[in-house]
Amino acid sequence: MLKLRAPSPASWLHTVLSDFDTFLVDHANCERKASATALQLAAHYPNRLELVDAMLELALEELTHYRQVYHWLRQRGRQLGPDSKDAYVRKLAAACRQGSDVYFLDRLLLAGIIEARGCERFGLIANGLPDGPLRTFYDDITASEARHHGLFLRLARTYFEAETVEVRKSELLDLEAQVMLELPLRPALH
Amino acid sequence: MLKLRAPSPASWLHTVLSDFDTFLVDHANCERKASATALQLAAHYPNRLELVDAMLELALEELTHYRQVYHWLRQRGRQLGPDSKDAYVRKLAAACRQGSDVYFLDRLLLAGIIEARGCERFGLIANGLPDGPLRTFYDDITASEARHHGLFLRLARTYFEAETVEVRKSELLDLEAQVMLELPLRPALH
Repeated sequence: MLKLRAPSPASWLHTVLSDFDTFLVDHANCERKASATALQLAAHYPNRLELVDAMLELALEELTHYRQVYHWLRQRGRQLGPDSKDAYVRKLAAACRQGSDVYFLDRLLLAGIIEARGCERFGLIANGLPDGPLRTFYDDITASEARHHGLFLRLARTYFEAETVEVRKSELLDLEAQVMLELPLRPALH
Repeated sequence: MLKLRAPSPASWLHTVLSDFDTFLVDHANCERKASATALQLAAHYPNRLELVDAMLELALEELTHYRQVYHWLRQRGRQLGPDSKDAYVRKLAAACRQGSDVYFLDRLLLAGIIEARGCERFGLIANGLPDGPLRTFYDDITASEARHHGLFLRLARTYFEAETVEVRKSELLDLEAQVMLELPLRPALH
């Protein structure tokens, strides 16, 4: 599993819970983009069959989450909203190295690390919500993100030496903690 | 339902069945693109709730088909392949009129017409294949595309007057027949 190097600040949870409708719009968009990213990975590496199998399953799962979050929005009298720029993902993506092999490794590890942060934050939300179906939903989402970051790490180890994976994973985990802590707080996943 | 104005030439089916692996790669990409188009429609018109509900369901169904077609490719020792340009879809999309209302109507009707053509052609494939699981799969896909073109026509009638829909539908069906008949044959859906 991917052990993040810094916990989210407590004020992040407060920011989210005090404007949960806005958070849900962002959460929906994050699920949609996660599905699209999985499809891109599959299309980019069609001959890496374990990857393609996993990414097609993941894309469907994330799209199912998108629809579920949309149903929560509907239930609260809200609707889907436009994408906001995600400085967190953009800064992490900028760390992908050039060169087909290292680029592939970096994409896998970053995808895993982003899922790990999602897992931590959805868990915080679940704990911060009162008992009820919305809390149960976030418990389920947390469990699902936990599976996903394990999946990306396993894929990295399928295609690269364990030592190569460990060294780069450590560098990217450091970077992620730094990027995350520098982000302004907003009612959004990142 | 949308009644197409011209049947596909018999030589189209022959072209497809004589290079079915290539056809499957294109079919997979068509399902993926249909899913993306449904998501775009939902994101473009977030306050048209009936549309959004239907498009999120459709996007999931098309992505499920994508995965199923991929499994057929895998079973035949093939893999996903790059997108080819789809002159048929491009020429039809060029017929969308400017102006937010008419643009929306044209998008719905063209989506329905493209599904109707897909339905006709998947049905031809099902009839052209020997009995077996692949034929059953194409029977199921045909039934599903039949539901989808009905869905788009129903949505058009939800948001526009019946007469407005009929007039434009007739124009676009004429255009579709002309575009389809001018296409060079290739082992692809369009």
